[in-house]
Amino acid sequence: MHLKLVLEYDGGRYAGWQFQPGQPTVEGELRRALGELPLELGTLVAAGRTDAGTHAEGQVVSLSVEGGIPAERLTGALNAHLPPDVAVLECSEAPESFHARYSARSRRYRYRYLDRPARPALWRGRCWHLPAGLDAAAMDGAAARLVGRHDWTTYCTAQPERDVVRALISARVERRPPFVELEVVGEGFLRGMVRGIAAALAEVGQGRRQAGWPLEILEARDRALAAQTAPAAGLTLVEVTYG
Amino acid sequence: MHLKLVLEYDGGRYAGWQFQPGQPTVEGELRRALGELPLELGTLVAAGRTDAGTHAEGQVVSLSVEGGIPAERLTGALNAHLPPDVAVLECSEAPESFHARYSARSRRYRYRYLDRPARPALWRGRCWHLPAGLDAAAMDGAAARLVGRHDWTTYCTAQPERDVVRALISARVERRPPFVELEVVGEGFLRGMVRGIAAALAEVGQGRRQAGWPLEILEARDRALAAQTAPAAGLTLVEVTYG
Repeated sequence: MHLKLVLEYDGGRYAGWQFQPGQPTVEGELRRALGELPLELGTLVAAGRTDAGTHAEGQVVSLSVEGGIPAERLTGALNAHLPPDVAVLECSEAPESFHARYSARSRRYRYRYLDRPARPALWRGRCWHLPAGLDAAAMDGAAARLVGRHDWTTYCTAQPERDVVRALISARVERRPPFVELEVVGEGFLRGMVRGIAAALAEVGQGRRQAGWPLEILEARDRALAAQTAPAAGLTLVEVTYG
Repeated sequence: MHLKLVLEYDGGRYAGWQFQPGQPTVEGELRRALGELPLELGTLVAAGRTDAGTHAEGQVVSLSVEGGIPAERLTGALNAHLPPDVAVLECSEAPESFHARYSARSRRYRYRYLDRPARPALWRGRCWHLPAGLDAAAMDGAAARLVGRHDWTTYCTAQPERDVVRALISARVERRPPFVELEVVGEGFLRGMVRGIAAALAEVGQGRRQAGWPLEILEARDRALAAQTAPAAGLTLVEVTYG
């Protein structure tokens, strides 16, 4: 049986999605929970390998299993075995050809900035705290210029992939109290890319750079020009869509 | 010097606002942090004595201090000594007559329901999970009928106060994904009152009671008729206003 799972998690205490021996990872927790059920696990692939501290409201996983549990009962069975900070939202049968990563048409991420003098208490671990106020309109203008198909060399932390060209479908910044929120939709994102964009836009929002600067460094294709990476805690994988 | 503080906290690990020896409380943490500073603390009063597990985005505290720190530096100094789940948002000088509780003109609370089959992961401890879908429009209609000055005997868990008459200024229910949110504004709220209203509205939202039922039991002034109290985790003290 081939399955599609949708997962929500608080990435705060994890070393990221991807399984690493001896480290708490979301994939590790999911594999452990699957191991508690009377089934045989085949392949397991996630749409996005989220970093340590990054959250998900709609991570998608494709997996193959052999065995006893119907798809409609798997959600409850897995949630009973997963830790409180990870939950399966949906589980459905999928065609054999469904691959969470390669079949994905787009991914949507949200980045949250908290721009106020006082540090977060309720939202600790869920945002990037910037003590000075941000100019959300300037950030939105800068974000809009990044939309399109580009070589993202400047914005990614490492390039194990040869191909660093990706289409950014939309990028919006809006004030949604208490946060300023960046929402990006793209075909796919390279490692560190959303956090790289978030950091560059923060430079604009703080008035340290002009609205044209994020595009300018993008076009220069030089990692050395980039702003530091924005903290993982502000980032959430919101949704993955399929054709 | 007489001061007004505005506080944010995650009530998850606290036995409530009010100081209790040997228990973690938000008031206890604030008194401990004040004790680390070179000042002498007089009276300290909060606008609302939130229950164990209840959160605040805008709890207000009035206090008198003698000593060395100007009000504008107190926010930073206190935040350096408070635990990560409590933060001072603002600190300002106030007239001697300012009393966080008695000077308050209104209080605004938010109650969050998460109505979906899967338990929360990202929002655990921040909402009431109800596996079945809620009819937010029916809840909103029922909430509107409760607005006005009433004897709230049915809705409060205990009445140390003799006077259980309070004016509910507004009560709205709206779907704000992933939540259904109740927002109430009132002159003041009795112990358990918001959670009592939240529970009664959940009965309507789940189709177990008609929209007129919450008002009907209110008018009967009989605690025995009430729905069970809604969990504290869903409740946040959002704002307190002053004349």
